Amino acid sequence: MGDVNRQWRLARRPRGEAAKDDFEFVEAAVPRTLRPGEILIRNRYLSLDPYMRWRMDDAKSYAPPVAIDDPMVGSTIAEVVRSDDSAFRPGQMVLAQGGWQDYAVASSSSLRIVDEAVEPTAFLNVLGSPGFTAYAGLMKIGMPKQGQTVVVGAATGPVGSMVGQLAKRAGCRAVAIAGGPEKCRLAVDHFGFDAAVDHRGGDLAGDLAKACPDGVDVYFENIGGRVLDAVLPLLNDFARIPVCGVVSQYDGDESDGTRLASVMRDTLVKRLSWRGFIVTDFAAHRGEFLEMITPLVKTGAIVSLEDVVDGLEHAPEAFIGLLKGRNRGKLVIHIA
Amino acid sequence: MGDVNRQWRLARRPRGEAAKDDFEFVEAAVPRTLRPGEILIRNRYLSLDPYMRWRMDDAKSYAPPVAIDDPMVGSTIAEVVRSDDSAFRPGQMVLAQGGWQDYAVASSSSLRIVDEAVEPTAFLNVLGSPGFTAYAGLMKIGMPKQGQTVVVGAATGPVGSMVGQLAKRAGCRAVAIAGGPEKCRLAVDHFGFDAAVDHRGGDLAGDLAKACPDGVDVYFENIGGRVLDAVLPLLNDFARIPVCGVVSQYDGDESDGTRLASVMRDTLVKRLSWRGFIVTDFAAHRGEFLEMITPLVKTGAIVSLEDVVDGLEHAPEAFIGLLKGRNRGKLVIHIA
Repeated sequence: MGDVNRQWRLARRPRGEAAKDDFEFVEAAVPRTLRPGEILIRNRYLSLDPYMRWRMDDAKSYAPPVAIDDPMVGSTIAEVVRSDDSAFRPGQMVLAQGGWQDYAVASSSSLRIVDEAVEPTAFLNVLGSPGFTAYAGLMKIGMPKQGQTVVVGAATGPVGSMVGQLAKRAGCRAVAIAGGPEKCRLAVDHFGFDAAVDHRGGDLAGDLAKACPDGVDVYFENIGGRVLDAVLPLLNDFARIPVCGVVSQYDGDESDGTRLASVMRDTLVKRLSWRGFIVTDFAAHRGEFLEMITPLVKTGAIVSLEDVVDGLEHAPEAFIGLLKGRNRGKLVIHIA
Repeated sequence: MGDVNRQWRLARRPRGEAAKDDFEFVEAAVPRTLRPGEILIRNRYLSLDPYMRWRMDDAKSYAPPVAIDDPMVGSTIAEVVRSDDSAFRPGQMVLAQGGWQDYAVASSSSLRIVDEAVEPTAFLNVLGSPGFTAYAGLMKIGMPKQGQTVVVGAATGPVGSMVGQLAKRAGCRAVAIAGGPEKCRLAVDHFGFDAAVDHRGGDLAGDLAKACPDGVDVYFENIGGRVLDAVLPLLNDFARIPVCGVVSQYDGDESDGTRLASVMRDTLVKRLSWRGFIVTDFAAHRGEFLEMITPLVKTGAIVSLEDVVDGLEHAPEAFIGLLKGRNRGKLVIHIA
């Protein structure tokens, strides 16, 4: 065990876009004393996710903000270093809320032992919160039925790619919206979407209409703005819209022209259902999700894609790139 | 039986607000020949409702438009005049889709015999579509829980006043929004709302916030515009918003400033549910509704208020007044 716990702390709250100087890299001591029920873990992989941007702000949200000078929060795959709890042996791999750092002290109740027959990063992706977010939003709110059409934005991202795969398994037409021809190819060739529409392609509304000849029954909303504008006229009667995603996507002026009044009119005439959710609202369903998806991941029936960046020191720049849409797959930092 | 069937027909589609010249009063012959299963009825009371304005337009909606030169549609309480069906005896009172006219031919399956121990106009109001709309939207979508706060606009109208009474029966705080001090008094004194806010009072947002000290858990949306703007910041986590009402309420520029992006942000952060509905979506629950509400109407535990206008000839002007919010209670035409 090293003597030093490298940590990325929140140095200040971002003004607009997150910047490198909003973070501070410090060397803290490795925690030595553990209280009963506490376990010392060493993080191996850190998940970087858009929600973290929101946690940097001091605004009302569904989770409290990270305090200034506190380590940034995040899910990790970690190794048990020291434990008095017989359920956790040193060397065992666990899923933890370990944060942007080498070491963390976790309560045993917050840890989940992971199946070592599965690639560890899968627990930060298809078997982790992104996969479960897709599952909860699509299956519990979207309620896709055989033969219906499901549309999702950011379709090659960890949530969108899982939405597409689950939609296909439910017998639906799965339509991807992604940025650029490379991501569109990836959506169809790697994740099995029936069609992909490039939102930078110039005629988003027209292209999407062509890709959805029978309209849209479920729009998994995780992007907002122009994409939402393009989907609205295609929604069928009784369409469901699980609303997921990063709040800051709704902060800009992207949605020019689409006014609330027209959405309310459509909501009434088409009897649309909109429902905002975060994954913890569905915690009771996590067991059923893991039971269904784990074997499919092992056999390769459900695939994923990870961008693994080596070195904790690169976390802020990788995170900033993520917010700019620069990653292809799920962004994970390989810590050590 | 008279020889003449007076009818209000749709003469032309309105441009903007409905006007008297959009209707034509004609004298047609009373239908003489009935096919098997058809029944001749004489309308006694005609319900006038905001949805009729929408049926005058040639626009995509949940019901087809009235054709030019066809009689205007509407629910009526009618008397059976001629029937070969032993289930319907001449003189019996029925609820029908009889339209704006003296006589109509109805299929027996479209008629419902009404309980003559109840005031007939109740079947066009608390026991009819307005009451059932309130019941379906509040109980099936709004799902009010003891101690929560329910807000409804147009609160002295036939839907809003029933929403308030059902909210009180569910153990909720019921808050009315209405136009002018007289309607606000009516909401509290006659319909039993806990508080009423005058949307013409100058500080709608502030007054509503004072009337809802614990926020808003169910907003029965039937008015849009400035009222929606005032409710949005008060919505609690997991609030439900049944979206009901007249589509044309969303046609104007009332909702200035409230952009879709801010509603989507709130939908996500507060995990709001919005669901558009029309009452026929809940047809399977009409029996349970009548069973619960009919005895409450008979005992006076649920009250109503009707504006009865005498004479079919006054239907268009009464209807135009309704759209301008001039009525106090449910508007009904007493035909003969």
